[in-house]
Amino acid sequence: MKVGVDYYPEHWDRAVWQQDAKDMKAAGIKVVRLAEFAWSRLEPREEVYDFQWLDDAIAVLASEGLEIVLGTPTATPPHWLADGYPDVLPIDSKKQPMYKGVRWHRCYNSPSLRRYTRVIVEKLARHYAGNPAVIGWQTDNEMVANDCHCDACTAGFRQWLERKYSTLDNLNKEWGTVVWSGEYTAWSQVTTPLGGSPHQNPSFLLDFQRFSSDSVADFNKFQADILRTHCPDHFVTHNIWGYPVVTDNYDLFESMDFAAVDYYPATDQNNDAKARNYLGALTLDLTRGIKQKNFWVMEQLSGTPGCWFPMSRTPFPGMIRAHAWQTVSRGADVVVHFRWRTARIGAEQFWHGLLDHHGVPGRRFEEFKRFASELNMLSGLLDGTVVQNQVAMLYSHEQNNALRIQPQVDGFDYLANFKKLHQSFVRQGVGTDVLNWTSKVSDYKLVIAPSLYLEDPLVVQKLADYVEAGGTLVLTTRTGVKNMNNVCLPTRLPGALREIAGVIVDEYDPVGHDAQRIAMFDANTGCMQWCDLLEPSTAKPIAHYDSEYFKGRPAITCNPAGKGRVYYIGTVLDDAGYDALFGHIVRETGIPAFAGLPSGVEVSIRQSGDKRYMFVLNLTKRTHTVHLENHQRWRNAFTGGMASPDILLEQGGVEILMSAGA
Amino acid sequence: MKVGVDYYPEHWDRAVWQQDAKDMKAAGIKVVRLAEFAWSRLEPREEVYDFQWLDDAIAVLASEGLEIVLGTPTATPPHWLADGYPDVLPIDSKKQPMYKGVRWHRCYNSPSLRRYTRVIVEKLARHYAGNPAVIGWQTDNEMVANDCHCDACTAGFRQWLERKYSTLDNLNKEWGTVVWSGEYTAWSQVTTPLGGSPHQNPSFLLDFQRFSSDSVADFNKFQADILRTHCPDHFVTHNIWGYPVVTDNYDLFESMDFAAVDYYPATDQNNDAKARNYLGALTLDLTRGIKQKNFWVMEQLSGTPGCWFPMSRTPFPGMIRAHAWQTVSRGADVVVHFRWRTARIGAEQFWHGLLDHHGVPGRRFEEFKRFASELNMLSGLLDGTVVQNQVAMLYSHEQNNALRIQPQVDGFDYLANFKKLHQSFVRQGVGTDVLNWTSKVSDYKLVIAPSLYLEDPLVVQKLADYVEAGGTLVLTTRTGVKNMNNVCLPTRLPGALREIAGVIVDEYDPVGHDAQRIAMFDANTGCMQWCDLLEPSTAKPIAHYDSEYFKGRPAITCNPAGKGRVYYIGTVLDDAGYDALFGHIVRETGIPAFAGLPSGVEVSIRQSGDKRYMFVLNLTKRTHTVHLENHQRWRNAFTGGMASPDILLEQGGVEILMSAGA
Amino acid sequence: MKVGVDYYPEHWDRAVWQQDAKDMKAAGIKVVRLAEFAWSRLEPREEVYDFQWLDDAIAVLASEGLEIVLGTPTATPPHWLADGYPDVLPIDSKKQPMYKGVRWHRCYNSPSLRRYTRVIVEKLARHYAGNPAVIGWQTDNEMVANDCHCDACTAGFRQWLERKYSTLDNLNKEWGTVVWSGEYTAWSQVTTPLGGSPHQNPSFLLDFQRFSSDSVADFNKFQADILRTHCPDHFVTHNIWGYPVVTDNYDLFESMDFAAVDYYPATDQNNDAKARNYLGALTLDLTRGIKQKNFWVMEQLSGTPGCWFPMSRTPFPGMIRAHAWQTVSRGADVVVHFRWRTARIGAEQFWHGLLDHHGVPGRRFEEFKRFASELNMLSGLLDGTVVQNQVAMLYSHEQNNALRIQPQVDGFDYLANFKKLHQSFVRQGVGTDVLNWTSKVSDYKLVIAPSLYLEDPLVVQKLADYVEAGGTLVLTTRTGVKNMNNVCLPTRLPGALREIAGVIVDEYDPVGHDAQRIAMFDANTGCMQWCDLLEPSTAKPIAHYDSEYFKGRPAITCNPAGKGRVYYIGTVLDDAGYDALFGHIVRETGIPAFAGLPSGVEVSIRQSGDKRYMFVLNLTKRTHTVHLENHQRWRNAFTGGMASPDILLEQGGVEILMSAGA
Repeated sequence: MKVGVDYYPEHWDRAVWQQDAKDMKAAGIKVVRLAEFAWSRLEPREEVYDFQWLDDAIAVLASEGLEIVLGTPTATPPHWLADGYPDVLPIDSKKQPMYKGVRWHRCYNSPSLRRYTRVIVEKLARHYAGNPAVIGWQTDNEMVANDCHCDACTAGFRQWLERKYSTLDNLNKEWGTVVWSGEYTAWSQVTTPLGGSPHQNPSFLLDFQRFSSDSVADFNKFQADILRTHCPDHFVTHNIWGYPVVTDNYDLFESMDFAAVDYYPATDQNNDAKARNYLGALTLDLTRGIKQKNFWVMEQLSGTPGCWFPMSRTPFPGMIRAHAWQTVSRGADVVVHFRWRTARIGAEQFWHGLLDHHGVPGRRFEEFKRFASELNMLSGLLDGTVVQNQVAMLYSHEQNNALRIQPQVDGFDYLANFKKLHQSFVRQGVGTDVLNWTSKVSDYKLVIAPSLYLEDPLVVQKLADYVEAGGTLVLTTRTGVKNMNNVCLPTRLPGALREIAGVIVDEYDPVGHDAQRIAMFDANTGCMQWCDLLEPSTAKPIAHYDSEYFKGRPAITCNPAGKGRVYYIGTVLDDAGYDALFGHIVRETGIPAFAGLPSGVEVSIRQSGDKRYMFVLNLTKRTHTVHLENHQRWRNAFTGGMASPDILLEQGGVEILMSAGA
Repeated sequence: MKVGVDYYPEHWDRAVWQQDAKDMKAAGIKVVRLAEFAWSRLEPREEVYDFQWLDDAIAVLASEGLEIVLGTPTATPPHWLADGYPDVLPIDSKKQPMYKGVRWHRCYNSPSLRRYTRVIVEKLARHYAGNPAVIGWQTDNEMVANDCHCDACTAGFRQWLERKYSTLDNLNKEWGTVVWSGEYTAWSQVTTPLGGSPHQNPSFLLDFQRFSSDSVADFNKFQADILRTHCPDHFVTHNIWGYPVVTDNYDLFESMDFAAVDYYPATDQNNDAKARNYLGALTLDLTRGIKQKNFWVMEQLSGTPGCWFPMSRTPFPGMIRAHAWQTVSRGADVVVHFRWRTARIGAEQFWHGLLDHHGVPGRRFEEFKRFASELNMLSGLLDGTVVQNQVAMLYSHEQNNALRIQPQVDGFDYLANFKKLHQSFVRQGVGTDVLNWTSKVSDYKLVIAPSLYLEDPLVVQKLADYVEAGGTLVLTTRTGVKNMNNVCLPTRLPGALREIAGVIVDEYDPVGHDAQRIAMFDANTGCMQWCDLLEPSTAKPIAHYDSEYFKGRPAITCNPAGKGRVYYIGTVLDDAGYDALFGHIVRETGIPAFAGLPSGVEVSIRQSGDKRYMFVLNLTKRTHTVHLENHQRWRNAFTGGMASPDILLEQGGVEILMSAGA
Repeated sequence: MKVGVDYYPEHWDRAVWQQDAKDMKAAGIKVVRLAEFAWSRLEPREEVYDFQWLDDAIAVLASEGLEIVLGTPTATPPHWLADGYPDVLPIDSKKQPMYKGVRWHRCYNSPSLRRYTRVIVEKLARHYAGNPAVIGWQTDNEMVANDCHCDACTAGFRQWLERKYSTLDNLNKEWGTVVWSGEYTAWSQVTTPLGGSPHQNPSFLLDFQRFSSDSVADFNKFQADILRTHCPDHFVTHNIWGYPVVTDNYDLFESMDFAAVDYYPATDQNNDAKARNYLGALTLDLTRGIKQKNFWVMEQLSGTPGCWFPMSRTPFPGMIRAHAWQTVSRGADVVVHFRWRTARIGAEQFWHGLLDHHGVPGRRFEEFKRFASELNMLSGLLDGTVVQNQVAMLYSHEQNNALRIQPQVDGFDYLANFKKLHQSFVRQGVGTDVLNWTSKVSDYKLVIAPSLYLEDPLVVQKLADYVEAGGTLVLTTRTGVKNMNNVCLPTRLPGALREIAGVIVDEYDPVGHDAQRIAMFDANTGCMQWCDLLEPSTAKPIAHYDSEYFKGRPAITCNPAGKGRVYYIGTVLDDAGYDALFGHIVRETGIPAFAGLPSGVEVSIRQSGDKRYMFVLNLTKRTHTVHLENHQRWRNAFTGGMASPDILLEQGGVEILMSAGA
């Protein structure tokens, strides 16, 4: 368990390096990330290399005992590369280049990019393989799939399709190109989806997104292979920006040792629109689930974000510390704060770091220091602990992509709906593991599988087996709609899962924002977006619609199947509805919850064998008191004293408890 | 009178064709439309033709007695055509191509498109001329004017202008190109309106829209001529999408036998924004007016629409049937439902047909079947009946185009204002015929001519003659502003019609959303958008403004002229205002109305000689009771029983009455 | 002091010229602007010139004693020029041309434009140098900086940078191109900011805006030099459109004799969004400040504006006259109304002039005539009077450009915030001179210097000297953030001014629309956008925050410095807050104010020696009574009678008073 910072020695006078290194050490920092955008410094001219400055910077930092993570600089091809080899630039769907000069101006499939990436990464790997301060690598930076239409992508996409479908006849058949006379008669007719039209064939669009995702993963593996060849003792990871992304992060991290994420929780808590875009706890649960183990935060909130867009609010007192502990509570082993000094130059001048432009430590820095010293104090206890939950939620980039190609109804968003479900568990103090939808689920008491819109027969079989063996499975509307080629299935909904769900969808009404009512457990709650009108065969209705022409028809059912049971939710509930439903299921399943959590107060547990550490985090600006059941079983992790039954949490307050036996 | 469906045999296994044909027949279907997007199946490779599959499909359908309408497939040029002959693709105002792969990727003026269209249409026409199952043709699909800037369009536009203006000097003078130094000194300087700028000369923009409209009409006639040459016994029509369109539908249907429309009434009745885009009854009255006779619905609502955009609500129980009867009540003789099976493949997977993806008939299918059986039952009575109203509304694509080039004020929209006027008549149960503004009006008791912004001397003369002979004419604000070349006239408003209107506009205030008040018939109502401050000469004010600095000035006048009278409305009224005004005018003119209709309940009458059939349609989700005056004069069309004085209409309820003597 | 009109004889039949000239004279008009868009008439074909029509028009106008201002026609290159020499067209950031056919389709750096501009301007200058009716020139029309990326601009930008930075090493260092590997190693790598991305380096973006601004100023000087060579007795000016603009108007007018502005106050007073875009009095104060002397209005509101966009409301009765007097009250010596006749042709058909399309004088014309006769009556008194205020506000295009490149927070806008400050002085009847931020300020009692975000050491020194000598200076938040190369400074905020401000910003919170409270002078008021939490050293807090975690921390301070004092406002106040604060400062500084002005009633004074003329203008649609203190010191300027202590002002009411001794 360590704390780190992101640092850009190349942006600052060498005169400050040594003092910076001393100050980092004094602040409790152990790890420093360097050089992920420094290509023009490392290779100022084609085939002219200069690693001396980086050697020097590492030496200075190492002199204070700091460990180094190096970034490969491929996110920012220098001018000589983009100008000399224009195939480096991505081409948009109107055949216009993405001009150089910012970031991301590189096509993962560009032959020139690959060639020069190989050289610079290999040289860096060879050079730093033996440097004892260097512990590992970050590939590139925040890679996401391009929407690129260059010649290399066009040719690559054709090859990708040929590998998948073998013949054009198969492709025509699987995509249904007969619609609107889209049948191909020569491979040369197949292009990327030019024109940016959403009207294109959805099977075509989904395969192109898969190809684009595969291109990123392949570029990442390409770098990882080079690094592993020369630096067998170093770890390799990559830092993702967050969600949603077209890129399949499970594929992207196939070649990585562990996951890492850049985490910037919303500082504008009164701004619903901004807050909604942040997934908070879900981002961390998703990240932990990528490799199903602990992870790094490679960039962590240190001040107000803002660049070419307006700044948000500065983190309120306590916020930086509380969210740093939040990442630890959900599985982060190393938290690297972005960034040591706020940039004085370039486009990110107002993306604030720990130190302001003037460099004098202030409130935010002090708060960070408090977190660092606390983490260092507890790291002996927390090392080796992991997060182990009894509820699994199945996430799928495939579903997200397919549902963005064809948004089902106003307000329907796979990820936003996923967050609604996840938040209900957060509110009830129930930990959730968020896994790839193809992952093994047999160890969980409860599995939530939202909108399995594309139907994968292997997943269907896995879930059937899980239920057969006694598991509780929750399915939701828009399940079993399509096959994996994004073609609608002829089966009654919810498709192949209708057997274990014991129900079919008789018809549906995409109600959108035309809100409806539902009656469940003697209460009446709201629902929206979509209404499946259910026809149970063996299932038992547990909620009925209470509005319009479908009043009285089943909306949610529960079906006993094998030794387990399957819930089917035919609509999207409001928060109160989800809390009532999942409260019921959690109690029924015997999964522990934390009752009475105020909104915005989160609980998570790390454990190792019998040792359990419970984090109670007030992520709000209000003061809250939390009642702790069985408080005598818990001690304060810092003081060792007995936990109080009533925990007072100021704004940003953090309470860390350990099980009495730990 | 027949019911039909749109069917795509090429999308489905041949195995289902026969059963589908049987099921269609059993459902009461008589007509099937085929093949309007099937170019890649009919000509899979350049000059390689395959009509066998279509022959087979027709044979199967014909074996159940079904009649066939064939679409020409020109809306979807196949890859071999777009790739081999890129002049097929439209070019946008920034000189970028519209890429292939969806629909509409064809310039009507493209020489290659014309060449390959001629061949495929001619081959189809020859092949199916003698097929007894085939009764007629639909050209292309939902054609609208392109905004194309390709070489063929540029050259074509120049020729079009040369035909119109003979010399550049004339063109310069008529367009007023002297403004901003836009004078042309060589024909080569004349381009299409590149850059997409709304700041271009409005005379130039309007002529380009006319040219674009003429291009569609010419392409349509090009196909019709081929079809008529080879299939003299078949009808030829085209299916329009709706309104507004740049294309002048009156010109477009010059070469057609009758009009056809695709009709998808808004299913989201609680969503004002979506509902506003649908014209409902006005679409049907417009369509009937195109050829001033009965028409076809070539695609009729069968389920929720939705594709690349979110789905809307599913039609509520009764809605499919009620709207099918609505089309009949306003002049449809054949109603073809879109579509038999919901697509499993391609971009329109969620544009729901009669059968869902699973193919099992459900609520919507049953409702359709009820309509089909009812129509088949009544077709003996209704055959030969037509809609004949006493009110004519004059619609003009020219005005719509000109007013979109220069929107007069916030909120002002020619078509939306037209709909406001039309809806007032619908609410009062007064049938309206909506005609081209150049059509003959002498048979009507009342003529509504909204915003004759462009002044056509022939129309002026026609209206003057009409009033002279005793007609009642209603004019509105923004009349007589421009000549036909989109140049402002030097006459006082309302231009040449000011004589018969007996009023001039002293000045005007474009009030936009700055709502104003009006005093009329001892009541006070709202007005908006535009306020003409009127100076009557011979006219009598019947309403005055009641707000701001123009309080007390006349807003609406009535002028006796010849044997008739002319109303001039100098503003845009709210619904209550229009109902009061038109209620007054209708009573004064002796036009029959249907008093006390609840909002959303529509009445229309078809007749033939003495026989009259009245349709009372509840298009809402609420239950309504309608009081029928002189109920003893009416009988129920299905049972023959005496009509009740109080008609109870459930949601989507339909009552069809026939005159006692019918 | 004169009244004029803009006139386009080339748009009208020669038959009307003579009557128009007579009517102008009868209406009190003295000046007519001609020909600023008439290139295609003056040079119909390359090197074919025709000035005869203009000679004739001038002769006709001169026969009625009218004086002529000629526009150079370079805003509208004719077709032969744009087609024959395509380098004339600007190229956008995606490398697409701005097509000809509207206006502005000319790059100021285009060699062909320069070549043909030189010829036509020289020919015009030679031809009209000796025409006694011609008194001066307007260059081009409403020039603003292009965002052009053509070859000439690319080359020009490189040269501009080379002149500024000498070497690429300097440029790399000053711009901080090391960020994201943006270091240049060859001048050929430097382009304009292609792609239109806001993510580009802000130092790069700001220098490109300076280059673009310099390009306009250079093109303007290029024309002025030609005109001055041949017409030494004529004045040369240019008409600006308004604010904000990238172009530095102080630079642009360096080569001009006096400033001129086109003034269209908002007619939609109930439409906040539209009204907000107009700066009203601030536009006039800014214009007067450009050359720090009286100016011309070259286009003045005469009717509703509207073209390709919807029309606004027509000016309410009194509005045209009141705003014409407003321009005079704030320093206009000549008011040229746009335009004599409303265009019947071209894109500006609905930008209404004094006469409507029909040409019959109406209410607006009569109102204009009243203004003209009043001005002619008073011109003897007003000639030679100027506006001299005791408050200076420092405006900076540099700050505006830099703050638009990096908007600080939601709602923060340099110009909108400037207007908020300015409006507070307008409400209190305190005149303000608005000067370039680099101008001399020593003559003022109070200097307001909003958001000196970019820090210019010369300005810092000037302000320090000013305060030292006894001046009162008001600084606001976001001062001292950056150096002139748009790089963040390492000093504590407010940068080099923190010494005389006696305060530093401890930290800041970009609160945006998350409104906060402030306690000041025993009252409580709102603040927004940004909160600096202040740490005074020698300053005294005069307001504290009253909300959230920074409750009780200083928000506004006042520091005695030298013989003067410095206020620092760490946030953006609401109107009540500014009125309280500036009311306090104005009283403290002994600057005269006009108490009790109703909202929308403005006061301004022109003077010459002892003679003072006070204009009291009701710019609203409501009636107001204004109490005049010391009324016995004032006389009515028209009647010479004693001023009443209570002035009744109808909507658009105007009262002009002269000091009793004048």
